[in-house]
Amino acid sequence: MKTEGAMLHPLASGDGPEPELMCIFGTGDLGRSLGLCLLQSGYRVVYGSRRPHSCGPLPEGAQVMTHEESARSAKMIFVCVHREHYEFLEKMAPQLERKVLVDLSNNLKKDMYMEANAVYLQRLVPKAAVVKGLNTLSTWALQNGLLAGRQVYLCGNNGEAKRDVAEMATKLGLTVVDKGSLSAAKEVEDFPLQLFPEWRMPLYVAFGLSAFFFLYLVIRDIIYAYVENDEDISYRIMISLANKITPVVSLIMLSLCYLPGAIAGFLQLYRGTKYRRFPNWLDRWMLCRKQLGLLALGFALLHAIYTLIIPARYSDRQRVISNVLNEVKKNTTTPLYFDNTSAWRTDSLYALGILGFFLFVLLGLTSLPSVGGTLSWREFSFVQSTLGYLTLFLSTAHCYIYAWDKFLRKSTYKWYTPPDSMLCLIVPSVTLVLKLVLVLPCVNRPLMRIRQGWERNRLKDEMGELKATNM
Amino acid sequence: MKTEGAMLHPLASGDGPEPELMCIFGTGDLGRSLGLCLLQSGYRVVYGSRRPHSCGPLPEGAQVMTHEESARSAKMIFVCVHREHYEFLEKMAPQLERKVLVDLSNNLKKDMYMEANAVYLQRLVPKAAVVKGLNTLSTWALQNGLLAGRQVYLCGNNGEAKRDVAEMATKLGLTVVDKGSLSAAKEVEDFPLQLFPEWRMPLYVAFGLSAFFFLYLVIRDIIYAYVENDEDISYRIMISLANKITPVVSLIMLSLCYLPGAIAGFLQLYRGTKYRRFPNWLDRWMLCRKQLGLLALGFALLHAIYTLIIPARYSDRQRVISNVLNEVKKNTTTPLYFDNTSAWRTDSLYALGILGFFLFVLLGLTSLPSVGGTLSWREFSFVQSTLGYLTLFLSTAHCYIYAWDKFLRKSTYKWYTPPDSMLCLIVPSVTLVLKLVLVLPCVNRPLMRIRQGWERNRLKDEMGELKATNM
Amino acid sequence: MKTEGAMLHPLASGDGPEPELMCIFGTGDLGRSLGLCLLQSGYRVVYGSRRPHSCGPLPEGAQVMTHEESARSAKMIFVCVHREHYEFLEKMAPQLERKVLVDLSNNLKKDMYMEANAVYLQRLVPKAAVVKGLNTLSTWALQNGLLAGRQVYLCGNNGEAKRDVAEMATKLGLTVVDKGSLSAAKEVEDFPLQLFPEWRMPLYVAFGLSAFFFLYLVIRDIIYAYVENDEDISYRIMISLANKITPVVSLIMLSLCYLPGAIAGFLQLYRGTKYRRFPNWLDRWMLCRKQLGLLALGFALLHAIYTLIIPARYSDRQRVISNVLNEVKKNTTTPLYFDNTSAWRTDSLYALGILGFFLFVLLGLTSLPSVGGTLSWREFSFVQSTLGYLTLFLSTAHCYIYAWDKFLRKSTYKWYTPPDSMLCLIVPSVTLVLKLVLVLPCVNRPLMRIRQGWERNRLKDEMGELKATNM
Repeated sequence: MKTEGAMLHPLASGDGPEPELMCIFGTGDLGRSLGLCLLQSGYRVVYGSRRPHSCGPLPEGAQVMTHEESARSAKMIFVCVHREHYEFLEKMAPQLERKVLVDLSNNLKKDMYMEANAVYLQRLVPKAAVVKGLNTLSTWALQNGLLAGRQVYLCGNNGEAKRDVAEMATKLGLTVVDKGSLSAAKEVEDFPLQLFPEWRMPLYVAFGLSAFFFLYLVIRDIIYAYVENDEDISYRIMISLANKITPVVSLIMLSLCYLPGAIAGFLQLYRGTKYRRFPNWLDRWMLCRKQLGLLALGFALLHAIYTLIIPARYSDRQRVISNVLNEVKKNTTTPLYFDNTSAWRTDSLYALGILGFFLFVLLGLTSLPSVGGTLSWREFSFVQSTLGYLTLFLSTAHCYIYAWDKFLRKSTYKWYTPPDSMLCLIVPSVTLVLKLVLVLPCVNRPLMRIRQGWERNRLKDEMGELKATNM
Repeated sequence: MKTEGAMLHPLASGDGPEPELMCIFGTGDLGRSLGLCLLQSGYRVVYGSRRPHSCGPLPEGAQVMTHEESARSAKMIFVCVHREHYEFLEKMAPQLERKVLVDLSNNLKKDMYMEANAVYLQRLVPKAAVVKGLNTLSTWALQNGLLAGRQVYLCGNNGEAKRDVAEMATKLGLTVVDKGSLSAAKEVEDFPLQLFPEWRMPLYVAFGLSAFFFLYLVIRDIIYAYVENDEDISYRIMISLANKITPVVSLIMLSLCYLPGAIAGFLQLYRGTKYRRFPNWLDRWMLCRKQLGLLALGFALLHAIYTLIIPARYSDRQRVISNVLNEVKKNTTTPLYFDNTSAWRTDSLYALGILGFFLFVLLGLTSLPSVGGTLSWREFSFVQSTLGYLTLFLSTAHCYIYAWDKFLRKSTYKWYTPPDSMLCLIVPSVTLVLKLVLVLPCVNRPLMRIRQGWERNRLKDEMGELKATNM
Repeated sequence: MKTEGAMLHPLASGDGPEPELMCIFGTGDLGRSLGLCLLQSGYRVVYGSRRPHSCGPLPEGAQVMTHEESARSAKMIFVCVHREHYEFLEKMAPQLERKVLVDLSNNLKKDMYMEANAVYLQRLVPKAAVVKGLNTLSTWALQNGLLAGRQVYLCGNNGEAKRDVAEMATKLGLTVVDKGSLSAAKEVEDFPLQLFPEWRMPLYVAFGLSAFFFLYLVIRDIIYAYVENDEDISYRIMISLANKITPVVSLIMLSLCYLPGAIAGFLQLYRGTKYRRFPNWLDRWMLCRKQLGLLALGFALLHAIYTLIIPARYSDRQRVISNVLNEVKKNTTTPLYFDNTSAWRTDSLYALGILGFFLFVLLGLTSLPSVGGTLSWREFSFVQSTLGYLTLFLSTAHCYIYAWDKFLRKSTYKWYTPPDSMLCLIVPSVTLVLKLVLVLPCVNRPLMRIRQGWERNRLKDEMGELKATNM
């Protein structure tokens, strides 16, 4: 128990050891907020400033000195100075030798400088241990103590220095992710500037599909009615058209979620191994499945609300009134004809849609980090694969019932174009058929063996090593 | 400041100490992905392989040697080999002495082997320190660096070894939970294979109730109409029936959430102490309250959507038309009769349902791990108890208004059976009455004292020790 | 590799070092549950009790001794005793010297005692290192092992002692937040007793606005109809009125979310610096923007459901029927007049409402801790600012379309009062206009410079230090 002595010794002296001293270069906004946080977490803080006597209000309890003096007194120094002013650090190199320099700086734009700020700093002060990190924290979060559980990145060439910074960050309640050596500094510095990079491709797909179907439907519905029947139904753009676009895009994007998995399965079967990397496009596709699915869920939600609002619309109410007036004119003595098939059809349509949407919401909930993180691998795979395919199946069935026998009627093919509900069935149908083939026992068995590491063209005795336990 | 010297020394040498070396046995999928992660986190990696010269592509920067050589060079060894091939480790026992062996293996099924993989490994190499863990990480997550914040379990008999592995895992961004000694290995190995164990009982209850009410309603509604009135209203199965089953099951399950708490209160009052364990069935019931509640919320959501879709249904529209036709036939000169009571009743029905559902959604949100985790104990108890009972009260009132005066009419009791809306009121009414009794001051005061640790049959002077501060 | 020897030595002895021994004073509910947890995490546990021979059932594997004996054997002691019984610890001061005392106690009410429990304890046993913390864990959570990821607070004057407790807590799966010295003990002890402190002000605002509009609408709608037209439309209170109050309050509160940011911008422009603190009211307002927004989202959700239920209401159905009857009476030969403007207007109204609500839900999702925590600063600001203003704009437009040309008609101003839809447009319109001014290039450029640290009245050469990188 060698730590016991170390721990108990200071207690004997009455009030514990002095808390560690942290030095902050720069008395700007970031420096002040950081100092406040460090003081609250029990550290002592000293500021290094060009003009220690006129640097404005600092957090209570902090000292202020010249840069040189403050650097001498602490072993960890936070550099809260703009990159443009780093030169003064070069002159201080002797005082900074063996110190840990934490570079928190960010740039206003990506690629403003060829060299990452932290790499530049390390070059200026080669004998210090530069650690890049904490730069994802906003001044706002620091000021208001909203640090608990936030993820911060660290990188640096010196392991000990990184560990010290990580320990300090952990004390502040942060979760530290080590990004390796200082060569990762550029990536770390770009992080606060990135804007949903993994959402870009799915968003393009969503916008592309929406734009295509918008034009397609404007031509087929609005312009067709205007040209052929001389009717102005342009008001339909706001809801009727939107309510045709959203389900179509949602269904296609949902199936685009599952299509790459099926393609990957066939590729593995064809190659007879899972150890060759997928082609690049397939890899990238598979990496954005979650985003594709969430966008599809968004569109499905819009479709649900658009559908539910229908009976409250003016046009729908006028339609009901005109239906009644027709009935009244036709005949008021015979009872109203009730078409059981129509009742079954619309009710099935709605029921399938509701169940599919319900499962879709469940899928969306499990993709919340805090929910998904608590699932075991088998649970996650059950939800995302089994429930996911069930969702796709229900949604596709919902769409088939909607399309029903329309494809038989000639009036459907306005200007010889197929309706949107037929177009949107292609991708999901293909996906479901591919999946169906993959779960056939005669196809599934070799695939499972391949996924467990078996290779068609490899010597049996080389298989002794674990290929993959999970997935 | 004894660490100062240790920390600053390596800095003097220019580029910090060499990063730690990790050894991985097995060049399969898991081994490769793990190596990649370790390299990215700044470790050096060496692979141990049977055929170091033909083991396929490995992550850049990693070395590959024979098992023996690689084991010698590192102190921590990751065993990424299938359990079936563990025997070779027995022969290597001398080289593995004093090493930390991390067993990441999983099995394909539960109970494939009597003995946990890690226990078996420890038996083969008794002088190494086996640590079971990290087995919940999928190859996919490792390959794509999706580790931040994931929870992993560790267990092992050697505390130092576990601490070393925990430190490594923390560096990878993982959250470590210590499950104790190697006797927990079986549990840790079963974890990736478990499929919602805590949801099983609530799901059975939900399915059981749904099936019962489905049959009950098919007989009472569909078959009754067919037999007695010769009407075919089978189309109602899709929505009308579902919209009767979901609220009924939802309300019963919501009250089953709160019933065990009330029973526990009475049991504590009867026993005069809270220090005797509850009977087993009550304990298990109380442990699945969250799942019961979330399933009830799911059913409530379905009920809400089913209700909102009603006016868009074919059958509902036909009903409106036939209502109008009746009015037209009857008399078109007198103004339409507007029944204020009906207006009040349906509006109250909807308003109570909406408010109840709204509170229910709030309850559901606070059960999200990331939301609930930020609540203080008093806040959590306020939401789950006060808001929960309010939700139950509103939902029950909603159902009472729906049932209204039906119980007075003879036509309600088709084939002498009570309607579902009456059946489903039993459990919630009982729960609310029990709760009402428990909050009466004369009952609540002794219960509160019992919950703070007072015991009816215990000597006063033994009460000096804290019984319970919270809860 | 100095740790290697230390680590490997115990392995040589065969079965690892003895796990650490923890001492718990108090065999009550909390003590027992805590002991169970510690045992499960691999510690050994000894209880200190007044009557070691009659203290009821304890977790299997734990020992029980007198307080003095148990204190001697462990270096960390958990005090699970009510504050009222702390005196006995004073007599034990010699045995407790140099020990770590963890104070887990809570009080039943805020401010029951002047002095925090932990401060009192430290005063009684000045030579021990008192650490306050873990008091946010409920007995329930401890008993059921629901600790993983929970946040606990620690504070204490002795850094080593705190680090030891933090290490133990981390082993239990907890996330530790260091709150500094023992002077924070009061705050830590108050934490489990607080009830949504940051929600209080937004809730008052919401209730105030709701109450005002309720009264306003009851007078303008219900009482006006009763007095002037002798009509009883009181049933409208349940849904129609609620559906007027919720959107109005939601829109006002959403704009109250964005108004303080705009005011702050003008204040910074006026002052020419961002280094002067905002007035207190503005600071507090800005800190509760998230809660204002979430409440507004709640009201918007209610408004959405209330609107969707309209066509299912009795009063609405009667209105449809009476509309048809009017048409029938009027003329059944001319076709029903279809007003394209009305169709456009209601459809635009709904479409804007739906899109605004959809974006609002997105905003709400990103405010979930586990979602928001994964966003980069730029992403967060894009969502909360750009999407937020878009939401406000859509919602305001939705409301403008609803108000439409009503302000022109005299009948709108019942009893000379403006309708609620006009009243509620004031705050959002002002907010949007202010924002519009702020994004004008000639206003935005100086503001951006100020936000990057530029000061109108400061010497240029003092600006060398980093003012703010982010925000």
